[in-house]
Amino acid sequence: MQYKEIIERIYKELEDYTGHGKVADYIPALSKVNPEHFGISVATLDGDHFSAGDVETRFTIQSISKVFTLAMVSRHLGDKLWEIVGREPSGTAFNSLIQLEQERGIPRNPFINAGALVITDRLISLYKNPKEDILTFVRELSGNRDLNYNKDVALSEIEHSYRNLALANFVKSFGNLVNDPVKVIDTYCHHCALSMNAYELATSFLFLANGGIVSTSGQRVCGSRSAKRLNALMLTCGLYNESGDFAYRVGLPGKSGVGGGVVAVIPGKLSIAVWSPELNKNGNSYRGIEALERFTTYLGISVF
Amino acid sequence: MQYKEIIERIYKELEDYTGHGKVADYIPALSKVNPEHFGISVATLDGDHFSAGDVETRFTIQSISKVFTLAMVSRHLGDKLWEIVGREPSGTAFNSLIQLEQERGIPRNPFINAGALVITDRLISLYKNPKEDILTFVRELSGNRDLNYNKDVALSEIEHSYRNLALANFVKSFGNLVNDPVKVIDTYCHHCALSMNAYELATSFLFLANGGIVSTSGQRVCGSRSAKRLNALMLTCGLYNESGDFAYRVGLPGKSGVGGGVVAVIPGKLSIAVWSPELNKNGNSYRGIEALERFTTYLGISVF
Amino acid sequence: MQYKEIIERIYKELEDYTGHGKVADYIPALSKVNPEHFGISVATLDGDHFSAGDVETRFTIQSISKVFTLAMVSRHLGDKLWEIVGREPSGTAFNSLIQLEQERGIPRNPFINAGALVITDRLISLYKNPKEDILTFVRELSGNRDLNYNKDVALSEIEHSYRNLALANFVKSFGNLVNDPVKVIDTYCHHCALSMNAYELATSFLFLANGGIVSTSGQRVCGSRSAKRLNALMLTCGLYNESGDFAYRVGLPGKSGVGGGVVAVIPGKLSIAVWSPELNKNGNSYRGIEALERFTTYLGISVF
Amino acid sequence: MQYKEIIERIYKELEDYTGHGKVADYIPALSKVNPEHFGISVATLDGDHFSAGDVETRFTIQSISKVFTLAMVSRHLGDKLWEIVGREPSGTAFNSLIQLEQERGIPRNPFINAGALVITDRLISLYKNPKEDILTFVRELSGNRDLNYNKDVALSEIEHSYRNLALANFVKSFGNLVNDPVKVIDTYCHHCALSMNAYELATSFLFLANGGIVSTSGQRVCGSRSAKRLNALMLTCGLYNESGDFAYRVGLPGKSGVGGGVVAVIPGKLSIAVWSPELNKNGNSYRGIEALERFTTYLGISVF
Repeated sequence: MQYKEIIERIYKELEDYTGHGKVADYIPALSKVNPEHFGISVATLDGDHFSAGDVETRFTIQSISKVFTLAMVSRHLGDKLWEIVGREPSGTAFNSLIQLEQERGIPRNPFINAGALVITDRLISLYKNPKEDILTFVRELSGNRDLNYNKDVALSEIEHSYRNLALANFVKSFGNLVNDPVKVIDTYCHHCALSMNAYELATSFLFLANGGIVSTSGQRVCGSRSAKRLNALMLTCGLYNESGDFAYRVGLPGKSGVGGGVVAVIPGKLSIAVWSPELNKNGNSYRGIEALERFTTYLGISVF
Repeated sequence: MQYKEIIERIYKELEDYTGHGKVADYIPALSKVNPEHFGISVATLDGDHFSAGDVETRFTIQSISKVFTLAMVSRHLGDKLWEIVGREPSGTAFNSLIQLEQERGIPRNPFINAGALVITDRLISLYKNPKEDILTFVRELSGNRDLNYNKDVALSEIEHSYRNLALANFVKSFGNLVNDPVKVIDTYCHHCALSMNAYELATSFLFLANGGIVSTSGQRVCGSRSAKRLNALMLTCGLYNESGDFAYRVGLPGKSGVGGGVVAVIPGKLSIAVWSPELNKNGNSYRGIEALERFTTYLGISVF
Repeated sequence: MQYKEIIERIYKELEDYTGHGKVADYIPALSKVNPEHFGISVATLDGDHFSAGDVETRFTIQSISKVFTLAMVSRHLGDKLWEIVGREPSGTAFNSLIQLEQERGIPRNPFINAGALVITDRLISLYKNPKEDILTFVRELSGNRDLNYNKDVALSEIEHSYRNLALANFVKSFGNLVNDPVKVIDTYCHHCALSMNAYELATSFLFLANGGIVSTSGQRVCGSRSAKRLNALMLTCGLYNESGDFAYRVGLPGKSGVGGGVVAVIPGKLSIAVWSPELNKNGNSYRGIEALERFTTYLGISVF
Repeated sequence: MQYKEIIERIYKELEDYTGHGKVADYIPALSKVNPEHFGISVATLDGDHFSAGDVETRFTIQSISKVFTLAMVSRHLGDKLWEIVGREPSGTAFNSLIQLEQERGIPRNPFINAGALVITDRLISLYKNPKEDILTFVRELSGNRDLNYNKDVALSEIEHSYRNLALANFVKSFGNLVNDPVKVIDTYCHHCALSMNAYELATSFLFLANGGIVSTSGQRVCGSRSAKRLNALMLTCGLYNESGDFAYRVGLPGKSGVGGGVVAVIPGKLSIAVWSPELNKNGNSYRGIEALERFTTYLGISVF
C-alpha cells in the first residue's frame, strides 16, 4: 500500500533528524519530554490506519486543541462567531497586541492566543461542564474513551500564565470576554493539556477530511461548508508565524502545538499526525513539518 | 454545461449588486472608470471558455501583475528568492512598514507593495528589456499579441508614487534593492498598468491550474512544484488584509487588483476572472469576491 | 502681592471657560463630579498661600499620586530604580504596550501606567503597610492629618481595572513584578483614589521646589539632586502624550490626573495646583493647563 | 573664575574617557574623524568665553543644525508651525514611522528626521537661496563670516540618504511636503554638514539663553517666548531617545549631533558646547553628555 510505504520511507529518512531545535521549556512539565520521540500516523476515509514510529505515547496537544474548541463553539454561533474574532492571519505576538488595541479587542483569528481565549470564554458560556464537555467531544472524535487531561501540565501552565492572563484581561477591558479571566485561563490551560498520541490525533481530525462527519460513527460534527472553512482557517492561520511557509512547503490545512504535534488534512482523503517534540524558533516541530512536506511531495498531492 | 449555467446564474444574481463600495480614485486615470462594469470569464484545462457580462473591455490589472513578475523572477532565482522576500501573510500596510524595519528590509511576502518592488527590482537585473519582456511573457500566457500597458495610467501612477518611492528607498537603505528606486518604480507602475480583459486574465492564469504548463501551447512556464507554491502564496497572501477572509469564503488561490479585477484558480481544473471596479475598504472588488464565493458554493468545489 | 493678583486675574478670565471637554467617565464614581469646579492654589517657599476659587473641595488626585509613590520608592532604591523602569517619554498607551514588549517588560518611565504599577509593586515590598504608609507620607507633606482615600472611587477603579491587570500580568510575565498582580492593583487603585483639595496638593508638592525639604517642618524627603531629577521626570513625562505641549506652553515640571487636578513647580520659588474636572482628549484638565500657561506668561517666569 | 575652573576640572577628569563608543561610520567621510578629539567651550551673556581642550577644530554639527533651521522657519510661521509638525517627544525611529502613519504625515516633533525634513522643506519655500541663507544666519549667530558646509560630508550624506528619502517621500504621500523630496534632501544634507568648532557652536546658541537676542550685536533672532519655547523643545526632544535621560542627568535644554557635538543652554546665563566624536548606542556623544552632567553638578545649577 502506497501510504504505508511513503510513511515508512519518511520515518527512516528522518529517524536521526534531531538536534536542530529544542523541546518547549517554558514550564518544567514540558521540558522533561524526551526529544527523540518520533511517530507518524495516517487515518484514511476508507477506515485504514498507517503508522510508523512511536504513535502510542501520549503528549499534550497544546494549540492543536484550539481546533476542537473552535468546532464546538462555531457549531452554536455560526457566522456570529465572526463578530467576536477575525479570520485573518496575524504574524507575531507583537502584532497581535497592537492589532488587538487597534481592532478594539477583536483578536485577528481564533488560533492566536487572544482569539483562542475568546473562543474558550464563549465555550464556557455555551456548555454546562466545559472541561468535561471538551473531553467528551474529543473522546468521540478519537473513538477513545480514556483520553484525559495531563493534570501536571495543566497546573503548571496555569501557574505560568501571566502573559495569557494579560491577554485575557486586555480583551476583557474591551468587553470581548464574558467570563472571569481566571476561569477562562483555567479551562484554556486544561484543553491545551489534552493528552493524545499520534494515532488518536490523526483519527480525531478525520472529520475535517470528510465534510464534517465522523467516518466511523457517521456522526455529523459540523456542516460540510463549516468543515471546509475550518480547513481554510487552518491553512491561513494554523502554524502561527509560519503559516505561509507551511502552506508553501506542505500545501495542506494543518495545526501545530508546542508539545511537538502537527496534524494536517487532505480533504476527501485522509488526515495525518506527526509527533516530534523538538521545536524550531517559531514554536513548531521542525521534524513534523519536514515529514509532512515529504509526505505531500512523495504522494504528489496537496490542495494546490 | 454546468460552468456556463453557474456563471450566468451568478451574473444575473449580482447584475445590480453595486453601490456598496467605490472605484479606486487615488489617481485621476482610474477614477474615471464606470463602476457598473461586470464580467465573469472561466477558462478550463479542456480548452473551453465560458463568459458572462463584459469580458471584452480591458482594465488595468494592477496588483494581479505581481503574480506574473513573481513567476518571471522565481524561474531564475528558485529558492534563492526567499533570501530577499518572505512568504508569510502580512496584514496592513501599517504592519508592513514596522515589519520591514524589524525584519531589516526583507518584505514579508512578494504581494505586499514592498515585496513586489523587490521582485521588480530583481526582474530589472535579470532581464534585458524589463518592460518589453513582461509584455512578451503575458502575451504568451494570454495568447494575445496586442496586450499593452495603459500609458496614461502608468504615467499617472508614477506621478503619484510617493508612498511606493518611500518603500523602495526604505528597502534600499537596508541594501535589499539593487537598482535605482526611480527606475524600479517606473517598471513597477508599468506592469501594474497592464491592460487586459476578464477573458484574457482567466486565460493567462490557466498555467497555475495546469502544473505550470500553458495548456494551449504546451509551453512550460514553471515546474509543477513551483506552480503549486505560487498557488499557496496566492491563497495565503493574495488579497492583502482580506486573504484569510477570501480563503474562508471562496477557498481558492486568488489575486486581486485595485482596477477591480480578481482572478482565482482551481488546480487541475480551471481559472476564473471577474471584473467589477467598485472596491471594498480593503481595496478588493466586493462584487468580484461575492461572485467567486457563489461560484465555489454552487459548484461545490474548493481546494478544501 | 503679585501672585494673588495674577491668580485672581486668571480665575476671572477662565471662570466660564467650560464645555470644551468632559469629566472622566470610565467609572461611575468619577462621572458624577460637577464639571464646573475650578480652583487655583499657590504655595510659596516663604510660607505664603494664595488661592482663588474652590480650593477646599477634595477630589481624587489619580495619576498625580504617582509622584508620591515614586518619591517613596526612589528614596530606598536610588539609582537601582532605573533597572526596573526607564526615564524616557512615551507617547500613547499604544506605544507603551509595544515598547513594553520590545523592552522586555521595563516600562519606559514611572508615570505611564505600566511604570507606576512597577513602582507600586516595589513599594509593597519595601513598606510594611503600603496603603497606610502612603497616607502617612502624603499627610506629612500636606500637613493635614485627615487626608484619606476615597473608598468608593478606589473600589470602583478596582472593579474596572482589566486593562491595568493586563499590564501588570504582562510585566509579571517578564519577571518585572514581584508581588501578586491583584495586590498591586489594589494598592495602585487606592493611591490613585487619594482625596485632596487644590490647597493641599500645592502644599504637598512644595518640597520639589525646595530641593527635597518640606519647608514648614524642615523634614528632608529626598536629596537635592533627587528633587531636581523628579522635576526633570515630570517635565518630560508628566502629562502623558501632552508632555511636550505642556513644556512648550507652560514651561514647568508638572503632573496631571484624570480627576482634573494639575500641579506644577517653579524650583526655588513655589508650587501651584489647579483643579478643573473637564478633560481634553489626552486626559488632562484643559482649563488647568490653560490657567498654568497664563500663570507663567503673566509672571514672566518658567524654567526656560 | 568659577566657569573656567569647572571646565578645566572636567576636561582633566574626562581626558582619557574614551573607548566606550564609536565614531559615526554610516558614511566614509564621518568615519575618518579622530575619536580622541575633546573640547569644551562656554559662552556667557556677559560676553566671556571659557574653553578647554580642542575648541578650534571644526566638525559637522549634523542634527544640531535642526535648531537653526527651526528658528529660521518658526520666525515666519509662528504658531502655524504646529499644523505641519508636532511638539511631543518620540522615541525610536521605529516609532516615528508608525506614528507618521497614524498621525497622517505630521511628524511628532521638529527634531526627529521626518520633522526636520518638513522644516527644511518649508525653509526652501520661505527663503530665496536656502543654502546660502542658512549659512548667513549661522554666520551672524556665531559672528564668524567664514563658516561653511563640509562639501565632502554633504555629498557623502546625499549618496547615502535612502532612509531620509524614504521619510521625505512618505511625508510627501500625505501631502505634508511642498517641494521635491530630492531637493529637500539636498538642502537637509547640506545644513547637517555645517562645519563649526565648539567655540563657534557655544557662541551661536547664546541667543537662546538671552531671550532670543544675539548678545554681541543686539540683533533679535526671535521673541522671548519663542526662545523659551525652543528651549522647551530641546529639553523634551533634543537628544532623540535619550532626551529623558539627558533632562534627568544634565537638566538643561540641549541638542546633539552624530558628529559628536552637544550643546546646552542655561537660560539667563550661558551656553556650552562639547565635542567628542565617540557616540553611545543612541547616537549621542557619551563623553559630551558626561561632561555636561558634571558641569551642572559642579555648578549646582540646572533648570530644575
